[in-house]
Amino acid sequence: MKELKDRIRRDGIIKSGNVLKVDSFLNHQMDIRLFEAIGQEFKQRFSDVEVNKILTIEASGIGIACVVARSFDVPVVFAKKTQTKNIAGEVYTTKVESFTHGRVYDVIVSKEFLGKGDKVLLIDDFLANGKALEGLARLVEESGAQLVGAGIVIEKGFQAGGKMLRKEGIRIESLAIVESMDEATGKIVFRGED
Amino acid sequence: MKELKDRIRRDGIIKSGNVLKVDSFLNHQMDIRLFEAIGQEFKQRFSDVEVNKILTIEASGIGIACVVARSFDVPVVFAKKTQTKNIAGEVYTTKVESFTHGRVYDVIVSKEFLGKGDKVLLIDDFLANGKALEGLARLVEESGAQLVGAGIVIEKGFQAGGKMLRKEGIRIESLAIVESMDEATGKIVFRGED
Repeated sequence: MKELKDRIRRDGIIKSGNVLKVDSFLNHQMDIRLFEAIGQEFKQRFSDVEVNKILTIEASGIGIACVVARSFDVPVVFAKKTQTKNIAGEVYTTKVESFTHGRVYDVIVSKEFLGKGDKVLLIDDFLANGKALEGLARLVEESGAQLVGAGIVIEKGFQAGGKMLRKEGIRIESLAIVESMDEATGKIVFRGED
Repeated sequence: MKELKDRIRRDGIIKSGNVLKVDSFLNHQMDIRLFEAIGQEFKQRFSDVEVNKILTIEASGIGIACVVARSFDVPVVFAKKTQTKNIAGEVYTTKVESFTHGRVYDVIVSKEFLGKGDKVLLIDDFLANGKALEGLARLVEESGAQLVGAGIVIEKGFQAGGKMLRKEGIRIESLAIVESMDEATGKIVFRGED
């Protein structure tokens, strides 16, 4: 998606440790016009399948998912990160390892809001090692819903998540796949470009 | 807002401890069509003032804020709850006491995304004791931005937050103010109704 790649090149900041800071438009301050364009792009890419629910994970996925949901005219459910004990039976739950925060947390979705008959599109801002997306996919599987695919805004193509999850058969559409980035020069190479 | 009040009456669940569960359409599963109607309502109520940024707080405020932002055609910034130390100077920070979770957490906004010249509308799903909204107002004040007002989806009129913050001079527009609710009968009385 050219508009997105241009924006990443213009406003993204490469930091040490393979960090791509895009918090001026994607995950702290949020450019809603860009989110609408992202929604239309996902709708086009997933035009061949039926979607009746979007699932994302708090916190930075929520805003994108809600604007994208307009293009699909479906509700959004967000999985909650929790450290509190939940009553067994009421929620689907899985564990997700966060490399950013260096810990494992529980991710839950109420059983009321996900189940058989749901055709679920996952939406998230980033795909890197794939742990969050893998967790969401497990929740969908546990619920008996059908996983239609995953729409990702920025994939770090040099990390293992995308390859691993595609190998597992998950259809992933990433709007910008960063093949490499150089902190010293600020140069970003996207997949499909020289 | 009639559509919202009808929805609360239909799908809201009153639990002990003055809890109003609306997670089937507001803050776990999210009805994006309803959010759009909410956005149009806020736009109308704040049509007399200029707004160039919406500020909310993670997690459940984000989805509403992003859909509401379409009606105002402005970007959204969400304040982050954090337990990690942040480098002084880079962020505005304040402390917010959460009664729901029984602890105090730090709330931060990057200085890059809030400052002089910003005319800020606060958006949140709930107003009860007012601690979260008060924290957001403090961040706006610290940044030198102008606080235009606050748009709240559901206010618990029997708790002190709304009264306290209006007394401080903050303009608050709440789309549904719950005056009382009865767990035993399921009856909800909204302000302005018998």
